[in-house]
Amino acid sequence: MSDKEPKPLTGKQLARKPRGFPDKREALIQSQAKLVETITGVYRKWGFEALETGAFEYADALGKFLPDADRPNAGVFSIQDDDEQWMALRYDLTAPLARFVAEAGQSLGRPFRRYAAGPVWRNEKPGPGRFREFWQCDADTIGAPGYHADAEMIAMGAEALRAVGMETGEFVIRVNTRRLLNGVLDGVGASNPDTRLAILRALDKLDRLGIEGVADLLGEGRMDESGDYTKGAGLGAEEVKRVLAFAQAGADTRAETLANLTKATGDTEEGKAGLVELEAIAKALEALGAPEGDVVIDPSVVRGLEYYTGPVYEAELLREVTGDDGKTYRIGSIGGGGRYDDLVARFTGQSVPATGFSIGISRLAAALAIMDETPKLDGPVVVLSLDRDNPSVALSTAAELRAAGLRAEAYMGGANNMGKQMKYADRRGSPAVVMVGEDEIAKGTVTIKDLEMGALKAKAIKSNEEYREARPGQIEVPRGEMVEAVRKIVEAQA
Amino acid sequence: MSDKEPKPLTGKQLARKPRGFPDKREALIQSQAKLVETITGVYRKWGFEALETGAFEYADALGKFLPDADRPNAGVFSIQDDDEQWMALRYDLTAPLARFVAEAGQSLGRPFRRYAAGPVWRNEKPGPGRFREFWQCDADTIGAPGYHADAEMIAMGAEALRAVGMETGEFVIRVNTRRLLNGVLDGVGASNPDTRLAILRALDKLDRLGIEGVADLLGEGRMDESGDYTKGAGLGAEEVKRVLAFAQAGADTRAETLANLTKATGDTEEGKAGLVELEAIAKALEALGAPEGDVVIDPSVVRGLEYYTGPVYEAELLREVTGDDGKTYRIGSIGGGGRYDDLVARFTGQSVPATGFSIGISRLAAALAIMDETPKLDGPVVVLSLDRDNPSVALSTAAELRAAGLRAEAYMGGANNMGKQMKYADRRGSPAVVMVGEDEIAKGTVTIKDLEMGALKAKAIKSNEEYREARPGQIEVPRGEMVEAVRKIVEAQA
Repeated sequence: MSDKEPKPLTGKQLARKPRGFPDKREALIQSQAKLVETITGVYRKWGFEALETGAFEYADALGKFLPDADRPNAGVFSIQDDDEQWMALRYDLTAPLARFVAEAGQSLGRPFRRYAAGPVWRNEKPGPGRFREFWQCDADTIGAPGYHADAEMIAMGAEALRAVGMETGEFVIRVNTRRLLNGVLDGVGASNPDTRLAILRALDKLDRLGIEGVADLLGEGRMDESGDYTKGAGLGAEEVKRVLAFAQAGADTRAETLANLTKATGDTEEGKAGLVELEAIAKALEALGAPEGDVVIDPSVVRGLEYYTGPVYEAELLREVTGDDGKTYRIGSIGGGGRYDDLVARFTGQSVPATGFSIGISRLAAALAIMDETPKLDGPVVVLSLDRDNPSVALSTAAELRAAGLRAEAYMGGANNMGKQMKYADRRGSPAVVMVGEDEIAKGTVTIKDLEMGALKAKAIKSNEEYREARPGQIEVPRGEMVEAVRKIVEAQA
Repeated sequence: MSDKEPKPLTGKQLARKPRGFPDKREALIQSQAKLVETITGVYRKWGFEALETGAFEYADALGKFLPDADRPNAGVFSIQDDDEQWMALRYDLTAPLARFVAEAGQSLGRPFRRYAAGPVWRNEKPGPGRFREFWQCDADTIGAPGYHADAEMIAMGAEALRAVGMETGEFVIRVNTRRLLNGVLDGVGASNPDTRLAILRALDKLDRLGIEGVADLLGEGRMDESGDYTKGAGLGAEEVKRVLAFAQAGADTRAETLANLTKATGDTEEGKAGLVELEAIAKALEALGAPEGDVVIDPSVVRGLEYYTGPVYEAELLREVTGDDGKTYRIGSIGGGGRYDDLVARFTGQSVPATGFSIGISRLAAALAIMDETPKLDGPVVVLSLDRDNPSVALSTAAELRAAGLRAEAYMGGANNMGKQMKYADRRGSPAVVMVGEDEIAKGTVTIKDLEMGALKAKAIKSNEEYREARPGQIEVPRGEMVEAVRKIVEAQA
């Protein structure tokens, strides 16, 4: 409650927004809402129920699992609460879930299968297509020790991507496990953490540098085209060969890939355990009917989040698209997940088997916007306001159209001239405008203009005089027939 | 990318969340999602289009319009960006819209009609039913100078509340205007800001203290039952009478209320201008067919947000509900809005006529949860996992049910015993469980248990032996008939 004087109109504030928090318009919002509806629909069908947590968690409860988050609070937005405890905006939907599960305790029952959709925030450097706020849509099973629970996540992820329109060859889910990677590193005797990291970094560049480039990076080092030299992991020739055999184990079917991997990983304990995981997943994928093309075993997959303890998966869109700049882009990763058996244990001290899948809704919506043609606008019918002093006629006419189920509005702007009001209707993508002026009221009629047909017919017209005479796309009907006449036009354009 | 050793399971983090950021479960999430869908559906039908802004704005762009926000950053969550500029989480959806409109400039076209739904954040003291994160669902028209645009907001708000199930007498939208209040204050010669505030505070207590209490507060002062004395606004007897006549002007119809107000507000400039606003709104409400019971003119309405410049409206639920504690509650305000012609001018220096309506989704969902009976759980069909070493049968059985359109999952937990798995299905509200053990595989059948019928029949059973014999609700069908048998059970319970 206040009785302040109106503030003077200084106009001194700069109208600007922080980087990485994009405004979203109609087409993108509709597309994103449909993605969330479709994907959570698939999650529900697979037996998951909704759980949503708040935007803020205590910073220590979230933990530091983001890649490169060695500096305190790096990567997250943190704020000190009035009791001086540090809170942070969630950077994903998984860490808050672990807090929820630990807080709920045994009363929650196991397994607990939940889905969630919502924004997450990362305090990173924004760039083209890189935002600091974006939506994720996750499913998780808590209390699921079997690797078939991971397979379920993978198969369900594939079904969700098909449900939003992806077809064979347009996407792939790549599956790997942390333990297999560890087995390879153990197998080549890489015990030094720096060496292990150098090997993983080299593997991550297979796509970009090819086999020879990666071989150099695994060995002594590599000089790139600009003359810059990168020191290698320092492996011997035999070890380089083994790591490359591992990285190239991918084959046409999951069974063949597994056979190649068995040869490549040798007999380290971690390697064997990793193969057991992947074999169990492959068998369960078979039982779930996941097509070979949808899900592949790919030993090169490394997920960035540090809470994964076993199988990891990465969902990618394969289609190349042409951007506004005419260049070709591969959309790449739009989701993934993995097993995180130790995340709840941060609170309870007891390992709780858990696995989850996450789809990046914002990335996927952006990808679909690039891939698809722009959808046609389906604006409202606009009832023109022909008498500024008496808006009642336009208001009640729009109300009548809405009561009949049509999307309609009376023109609310300040323009009294018809040309500007027509321009507004054009910009909104209106199928039709309705005019009820003094003439029409006297005659008990309304004038309706079909904007699509009007535009078509107008092309054939040569002069302003002819246009005024022909009134293209315009009809006059008795007031009682308005609703049906408008409906016919709207449906013809749908 | 990282090759860190797994973290030790210390269990040292406290599983707790900051106050005022509630976790939400299935029933509330479904209810909230349905409210958003229904209300934005009404907004769309009235010709509004979607626009969503990011969670953060620059603090100076948001401005300080929250009630009691005299301290810097009070009421909002602020954070300094890496370039040292202060950002704040939006406290409503209107202030970011003003920034968007100013930033977009003339290219946006006018009028601009948008709707949005999303969370907002207020850094206030949380309490029962008072959260620091909650959802709003807004519609706004930018570039709409006529008061019929306010009437449109009000009539549309009423339609939205009816669309979510509110009936005549269960809700009301109260309409007032700032200028009428100013007129009354001018009329009684209250030029001192403290006196004006004391009068507004007294008026705000009409519901609680009644006419005599308010009369005391307008005059010398009032001693309450506990003996506490509140100093009054110090008006003379004649002035008190006039203010009370204003506060009691409400009548059965909007026309009668307006007639009473005309008598009560005298002939101050502001008072006359306020009456012109309300008369224009009343006329437009008539044209839009808004029932008298849905929308009333109520001179006591004062909205807290300080950016309003003209008409203000408050949407209230009238039904009294009984809480978990057996006490009776009136739900009260669940939304409102008003005209804010100067909000865009903070950036542009030029006044832009604008009006909007906001529904508090979180409050409304909580109210519906209290008013309605708890909806029945509709859990998934659970396929029991009878062979821990071979989950394939359960997986493919669940996949078959899903392929037929049913909601189904294979049990993913660690329990091998049937009793625990059945208990899980019960807790989920499953309509049925499916069992495919060795016997069934050999015979080519499946066993299906109807959990609702099973529970009913079990009540009549007296001993464990009898129970095992009778297997209440349980049937065995050929595998090929499973889908239809399960569907029959699910549909019978729907």
